[in-house]
Amino acid sequence: MFKLHPVLEADSFWVGRFGLSQVRLINDANYPWVLLVPEREDVTEIHQLSPADRALLIEESALVSGKLAALFHADKMNVAAIGNVVPQLHVHHVVRYKTDPAWPAPVWGRLPPRPYSEDARRQTVEKIRAALAPHVSHDA
Amino acid sequence: MFKLHPVLEADSFWVGRFGLSQVRLINDANYPWVLLVPEREDVTEIHQLSPADRALLIEESALVSGKLAALFHADKMNVAAIGNVVPQLHVHHVVRYKTDPAWPAPVWGRLPPRPYSEDARRQTVEKIRAALAPHVSHDA
Repeated sequence: MFKLHPVLEADSFWVGRFGLSQVRLINDANYPWVLLVPEREDVTEIHQLSPADRALLIEESALVSGKLAALFHADKMNVAAIGNVVPQLHVHHVVRYKTDPAWPAPVWGRLPPRPYSEDARRQTVEKIRAALAPHVSHDA
Repeated sequence: MFKLHPVLEADSFWVGRFGLSQVRLINDANYPWVLLVPEREDVTEIHQLSPADRALLIEESALVSGKLAALFHADKMNVAAIGNVVPQLHVHHVVRYKTDPAWPAPVWGRLPPRPYSEDARRQTVEKIRAALAPHVSHDA
Protein backbone atom coordinates (compact mmCIF):
# COMPACT_ATOMS: atom_id res chain seq x y z
CA MET A 1 0.00 0.00 0.00
CA PHE A 2 1.19 3.50 -0.81
CA LYS A 3 2.52 5.44 2.16
CA LEU A 4 3.89 8.95 1.85
CA HIS A 5 7.59 9.19 2.75
CA PRO A 6 7.94 10.76 6.23
CA VAL A 7 10.31 13.47 4.98
CA LEU A 8 7.81 14.58 2.31
CA GLU A 9 5.08 14.46 4.95
CA ALA A 10 7.12 16.67 7.29
CA ASP A 11 8.24 19.17 4.63
CA SER A 12 4.90 19.80 2.89
CA PHE A 13 1.16 20.34 3.36
CA TRP A 14 -1.75 18.45 1.91
CA VAL A 15 -3.52 20.30 -0.93
CA GLY A 16 -5.52 17.55 -2.59
CA ARG A 17 -5.43 14.54 -4.86
CA PHE A 18 -5.62 13.91 -8.59
CA GLY A 19 -6.32 10.52 -10.16
CA LEU A 20 -2.69 9.50 -9.72
CA SER A 21 -0.90 11.96 -7.47
CA GLN A 22 -1.11 13.75 -4.14
CA VAL A 23 -0.73 17.51 -4.47
CA ARG A 24 1.32 19.06 -1.66
CA LEU A 25 2.67 22.55 -0.90
CA ILE A 26 6.32 22.65 0.18
CA ASN A 27 6.73 24.56 3.43
CA ASP A 28 9.04 27.20 1.97
CA ALA A 29 7.61 30.65 1.40
CA ASN A 30 10.63 31.67 -0.68
CA TYR A 31 8.80 30.34 -3.75
CA PRO A 32 5.38 28.87 -4.50
CA TRP A 33 6.46 25.22 -4.71
CA VAL A 34 4.13 22.28 -5.23
CA LEU A 35 4.88 18.55 -5.25
CA LEU A 36 3.06 15.84 -7.13
CA VAL A 37 3.56 12.46 -5.48
CA PRO A 38 2.18 9.54 -7.50
CA GLU A 39 0.43 7.21 -5.06
CA ARG A 40 2.26 4.12 -6.21
CA GLU A 41 4.34 1.84 -4.02
CA ASP A 42 8.09 1.46 -4.41
CA VAL A 43 8.45 3.76 -7.42
CA THR A 44 11.51 6.00 -7.55
CA GLU A 45 11.68 6.87 -11.26
CA ILE A 46 9.14 8.13 -13.79
CA HIS A 47 10.26 5.35 -16.14
CA GLN A 48 9.12 2.76 -13.58
CA LEU A 49 5.49 3.91 -13.81
CA SER A 50 3.20 2.15 -16.27
CA PRO A 51 2.55 4.00 -19.55
CA ALA A 52 -1.01 4.71 -18.36
CA ASP A 53 0.29 6.24 -15.11
CA ARG A 54 2.86 8.27 -17.03
CA ALA A 55 0.09 9.67 -19.22
CA LEU A 56 -1.77 10.70 -16.05
CA LEU A 57 1.37 12.17 -14.49
CA ILE A 58 2.29 14.41 -17.42
CA GLU A 59 -1.28 15.77 -17.60
CA GLU A 60 -1.47 16.34 -13.84
CA SER A 61 1.95 17.99 -13.98
CA ALA A 62 1.04 20.23 -16.92
CA LEU A 63 -2.18 21.27 -15.20
CA VAL A 64 -0.35 22.17 -11.98
CA SER A 65 2.41 23.96 -13.87
CA GLY A 66 0.03 26.00 -16.04
CA LYS A 67 -2.24 26.93 -13.15
CA LEU A 68 0.63 27.92 -10.85
CA ALA A 69 2.27 29.96 -13.64
CA ALA A 70 -0.96 31.92 -14.16
CA LEU A 71 -1.90 32.22 -10.48
CA PHE A 72 1.49 33.47 -9.34
CA HIS A 73 2.56 35.27 -12.55
CA ALA A 74 5.68 33.12 -12.91
CA ASP A 75 8.60 34.16 -15.06
CA LYS A 76 9.47 30.47 -15.40
CA MET A 77 8.31 27.14 -14.05
CA ASN A 78 10.90 24.61 -12.90
CA VAL A 79 9.61 21.03 -13.11
CA ALA A 80 11.84 18.25 -11.85
CA ALA A 81 12.05 14.71 -10.53
CA ILE A 82 15.34 14.58 -8.58
CA GLY A 83 14.95 12.31 -5.54
CA ASN A 84 18.60 12.04 -4.55
CA VAL A 85 17.72 12.53 -0.88
CA VAL A 86 14.13 11.20 -0.70
CA PRO A 87 13.86 8.34 -3.18
CA GLN A 88 10.03 8.09 -3.29
CA LEU A 89 9.02 9.53 -6.68
CA HIS A 90 7.93 13.15 -6.36
CA VAL A 91 7.83 15.86 -9.00
CA HIS A 92 8.69 19.44 -8.04
CA HIS A 93 6.83 22.39 -9.59
CA VAL A 94 8.53 25.62 -8.55
CA VAL A 95 7.34 29.09 -9.52
CA ARG A 96 10.40 31.16 -10.38
CA TYR A 97 10.89 34.89 -10.72
CA LYS A 98 13.83 36.78 -12.15
CA THR A 99 13.81 38.61 -8.81
CA ASP A 100 13.69 35.55 -6.52
CA PRO A 101 16.63 34.97 -4.16
CA ALA A 102 18.05 31.93 -6.01
CA TRP A 103 17.53 33.06 -9.63
CA PRO A 104 18.80 31.81 -12.08
CA ALA A 105 20.08 28.82 -10.11
CA PRO A 106 17.75 25.91 -9.37
CA VAL A 107 16.29 26.15 -5.87
CA TRP A 108 17.59 22.95 -4.31
CA GLY A 109 20.17 23.51 -1.62
CA ARG A 110 20.42 27.27 -2.20
CA LEU A 111 18.52 28.92 0.64
CA PRO A 112 17.27 27.73 3.99
CA PRO A 113 13.50 27.09 3.75
CA ARG A 114 11.36 29.97 5.04
CA PRO A 115 8.36 28.30 6.77
CA TYR A 116 4.89 29.76 6.14
CA SER A 117 2.99 31.44 8.94
CA GLU A 118 -0.23 29.61 9.79
CA ASP A 119 -2.30 32.26 7.98
CA ALA A 120 -0.10 32.39 4.90
CA ARG A 121 -0.09 28.61 4.66
CA ARG A 122 -3.89 28.41 4.83
CA GLN A 123 -4.31 31.17 2.25
CA THR A 124 -1.76 29.70 -0.14
CA VAL A 125 -3.24 26.20 0.07
CA GLU A 126 -6.73 27.62 -0.52
CA LYS A 127 -5.59 29.66 -3.53
CA ILE A 128 -3.95 26.62 -5.10
CA ARG A 129 -6.99 24.42 -4.38
CA ALA A 130 -9.27 26.97 -5.99
CA ALA A 131 -7.00 27.17 -9.06
CA LEU A 132 -6.93 23.38 -9.43
CA ALA A 133 -10.67 22.85 -8.83
CA PRO A 134 -12.52 20.87 -10.06
CA HIS A 135 -9.61 18.60 -10.97
CA VAL A 136 -8.53 17.70 -7.44
CA SER A 137 -10.38 16.22 -4.50
CA HIS A 138 -9.55 17.65 -1.10
CA ASP A 139 -10.15 14.71 1.20
CA ALA A 140 -7.03 13.29 2.75
CA MET B 1 10.34 26.81 -37.98
CA PHE B 2 12.12 25.13 -35.08
CA LYS B 3 15.71 26.20 -34.59
CA LEU B 4 17.87 24.86 -31.78
CA HIS B 5 18.95 27.54 -29.30
CA PRO B 6 22.63 28.45 -29.97
CA VAL B 7 23.63 27.79 -26.34
CA LEU B 8 22.17 24.27 -26.46
CA GLU B 9 23.89 23.76 -29.81
CA ALA B 10 27.25 24.86 -28.35
CA ASP B 11 26.94 22.86 -25.11
CA SER B 12 25.81 19.50 -26.50
CA PHE B 13 26.28 16.95 -29.29
CA TRP B 14 23.74 15.49 -31.67
CA VAL B 15 22.72 11.92 -30.84
CA GLY B 16 19.50 11.48 -32.82
CA ARG B 17 15.84 12.31 -33.08
CA PHE B 18 12.60 10.83 -31.77
CA GLY B 19 9.16 11.68 -33.12
CA LEU B 20 9.07 14.88 -31.06
CA SER B 21 12.50 15.62 -29.64
CA GLN B 22 16.14 15.94 -30.52
CA VAL B 23 18.40 13.78 -28.36
CA ARG B 24 21.67 15.50 -27.42
CA LEU B 25 24.62 14.64 -25.15
CA ILE B 26 25.73 17.47 -22.86
CA ASN B 27 29.47 18.09 -23.18
CA ASP B 28 30.24 17.35 -19.55
CA ALA B 29 32.00 14.08 -18.76
CA ASN B 30 31.28 14.50 -15.03
CA TYR B 31 27.97 12.68 -15.59
CA PRO B 32 26.23 10.97 -18.51
CA TRP B 33 23.77 13.76 -19.27
CA VAL B 34 21.28 13.76 -22.14
CA LEU B 35 18.87 16.48 -23.28
CA LEU B 36 15.57 16.04 -25.02
CA VAL B 37 14.64 19.15 -26.99
CA PRO B 38 11.10 19.05 -28.43
CA GLU B 39 11.30 20.44 -31.96
CA ARG B 40 8.52 22.96 -31.46
CA GLU B 41 8.83 26.70 -31.98
CA ASP B 42 8.53 29.20 -29.14
CA VAL B 43 7.80 26.67 -26.41
CA THR B 44 9.38 27.27 -23.01
CA GLU B 45 7.18 25.14 -20.73
CA ILE B 46 5.92 21.55 -20.88
CA HIS B 47 2.40 22.86 -20.22
CA GLN B 48 2.55 24.86 -23.48
CA LEU B 49 2.90 21.69 -25.57
CA SER B 50 -0.26 20.10 -26.95
CA PRO B 51 -1.57 17.05 -25.06
CA ALA B 52 -0.44 14.86 -27.98
CA ASP B 53 3.09 16.30 -27.81
CA ARG B 54 3.14 15.87 -24.03
CA ALA B 55 2.22 12.21 -24.46
CA LEU B 56 5.16 11.84 -26.87
CA LEU B 57 7.50 13.73 -24.55
CA ILE B 58 6.82 11.64 -21.44
CA GLU B 59 7.33 8.41 -23.41
CA GLU B 60 10.52 9.68 -25.06
CA SER B 61 11.74 10.86 -21.66
CA ALA B 62 10.93 7.56 -19.93
CA LEU B 63 12.68 5.63 -22.69
CA VAL B 64 15.82 7.78 -22.39
CA SER B 65 15.75 7.63 -18.60
CA GLY B 66 15.30 3.87 -18.45
CA LYS B 67 17.94 3.15 -21.09
CA LEU B 68 20.50 5.50 -19.53
CA ALA B 69 19.84 4.07 -16.06
CA ALA B 70 20.52 0.54 -17.35
CA LEU B 71 23.43 1.43 -19.64
CA PHE B 72 25.34 3.44 -17.03
CA HIS B 73 24.16 1.58 -13.90
CA ALA B 74 22.70 4.74 -12.38
CA ASP B 75 21.97 5.03 -8.68
CA LYS B 76 19.33 7.66 -9.57
CA MET B 77 18.10 9.52 -12.62
CA ASN B 78 17.49 13.27 -12.37
CA VAL B 79 14.90 14.45 -14.90
CA ALA B 80 14.18 18.16 -15.09
CA ALA B 81 12.88 21.04 -17.18
CA ILE B 82 14.48 24.16 -15.69
CA GLY B 83 15.26 26.67 -18.45
CA ASN B 84 16.08 29.67 -16.29
CA VAL B 85 19.10 30.48 -18.45
CA VAL B 86 18.11 29.03 -21.85
CA PRO B 87 14.35 29.42 -22.20
CA GLN B 88 13.85 27.01 -25.16
CA LEU B 89 12.17 23.93 -23.66
CA HIS B 90 14.71 21.19 -22.96
CA VAL B 91 14.48 18.27 -20.55
CA HIS B 92 17.61 17.15 -18.70
CA HIS B 93 18.26 13.46 -18.01
CA VAL B 94 21.26 13.11 -15.72
CA VAL B 95 22.72 9.80 -14.57
CA ARG B 96 23.62 10.18 -10.91
CA TYR B 97 25.85 8.11 -8.65
CA LYS B 98 26.21 8.25 -4.91
CA THR B 99 29.92 8.68 -5.65
CA ASP B 100 29.63 11.50 -8.20
CA PRO B 101 31.23 14.84 -7.36
CA ALA B 102 27.95 16.73 -6.82
CA TRP B 103 25.92 14.03 -5.00
CA PRO B 104 23.35 14.48 -3.48
CA ALA B 105 22.96 18.04 -4.81
CA PRO B 106 21.46 18.58 -8.25
CA VAL B 107 24.15 19.10 -10.89
CA TRP B 108 23.31 22.60 -12.11
CA GLY B 109 25.87 25.21 -11.18
CA ARG B 110 27.91 22.85 -8.99
CA LEU B 111 31.01 21.92 -10.97
CA PRO B 112 32.67 23.36 -14.06
CA PRO B 113 31.83 21.15 -17.05
CA ARG B 114 34.53 18.62 -17.96
CA PRO B 115 34.54 18.46 -21.78
CA TYR B 116 34.78 15.03 -23.43
CA SER B 117 37.87 14.07 -25.41
CA GLU B 118 37.08 13.45 -29.07
CA ASP B 119 37.31 9.68 -28.55
CA ALA B 120 35.22 9.61 -25.39
CA ARG B 121 32.57 11.77 -27.02
CA ARG B 122 32.32 9.48 -30.05
CA GLN B 123 32.17 6.35 -27.90
CA THR B 124 29.56 7.81 -25.55
CA VAL B 125 27.33 9.03 -28.37
CA GLU B 126 27.59 5.63 -30.06
CA LYS B 127 26.73 3.76 -26.85
CA ILE B 128 23.67 5.93 -26.29
CA ARG B 129 22.57 5.60 -29.93
CA ALA B 130 22.87 1.84 -29.72
CA ALA B 131 20.85 1.78 -26.47
CA LEU B 132 18.09 3.91 -28.00
CA ALA B 133 17.95 2.06 -31.33
CA PRO B 134 15.59 1.48 -33.07
CA HIS B 135 13.60 4.33 -31.49
CA VAL B 136 15.74 7.21 -32.75
CA SER B 137 16.86 8.22 -36.20
CA HIS B 138 20.42 9.49 -36.49
CA ASP B 139 20.20 11.93 -39.41
CA ALA B 140 20.63 15.56 -38.43
